[in-house]
Amino acid sequence: MCCTPSLGKELLRVSDAESLATRFKAVADPNRLRILSIISSSPDAETCVCDLSEPLGLGQPTVSHHLKILVDAGLLNREKRGVWAYYSLVPGPLDSLAATLVCSS
Amino acid sequence: MCCTPSLGKELLRVSDAESLATRFKAVADPNRLRILSIISSSPDAETCVCDLSEPLGLGQPTVSHHLKILVDAGLLNREKRGVWAYYSLVPGPLDSLAATLVCSS
Repeated sequence: MCCTPSLGKELLRVSDAESLATRFKAVADPNRLRILSIISSSPDAETCVCDLSEPLGLGQPTVSHHLKILVDAGLLNREKRGVWAYYSLVPGPLDSLAATLVCSS
Repeated sequence: MCCTPSLGKELLRVSDAESLATRFKAVADPNRLRILSIISSSPDAETCVCDLSEPLGLGQPTVSHHLKILVDAGLLNREKRGVWAYYSLVPGPLDSLAATLVCSS
């Protein structure tokens, strides 16, 4: 088994549905999906905030806004080193988000 | 392999990110997650619109609004039989949505 059936197992409780929805909202944005894509495809699975503006074609404040939403949702780690902040995927939450969808049909 | 790496394979193109985000937005709502949960856990993987209001604690117009978003996003099939409409999961899209998240870390 590669996934834990979730949606189809029993009626989702309101509180579970709300916390799941919060995480889905965090990924339900084209720029945030592209940020996750850049970070997860980078060699160290870590990306400096300074390397995101250019590939995304967005200004620094907009990039920071999206990064904050992903950090607040528990999907990204943020580590300040010197002048810059570095972002990496938190292991687990994206997989468990996926698991709620897979095996449900 | 139970999943196709997607987010982590290469930088998501803007158009792909936009269509993915549209589907994630459709599931990024507690009531819609509960609707998917009810339908996928029902014995025939199909649910009459008349059986959704009560477990969700929502009025019929609100239920219909959420169902329309899920149908428009390609996640649910709608079949009218007699007086009522019946909803079932479209096979595939939830799995492929999940696959964009799994294997990306």
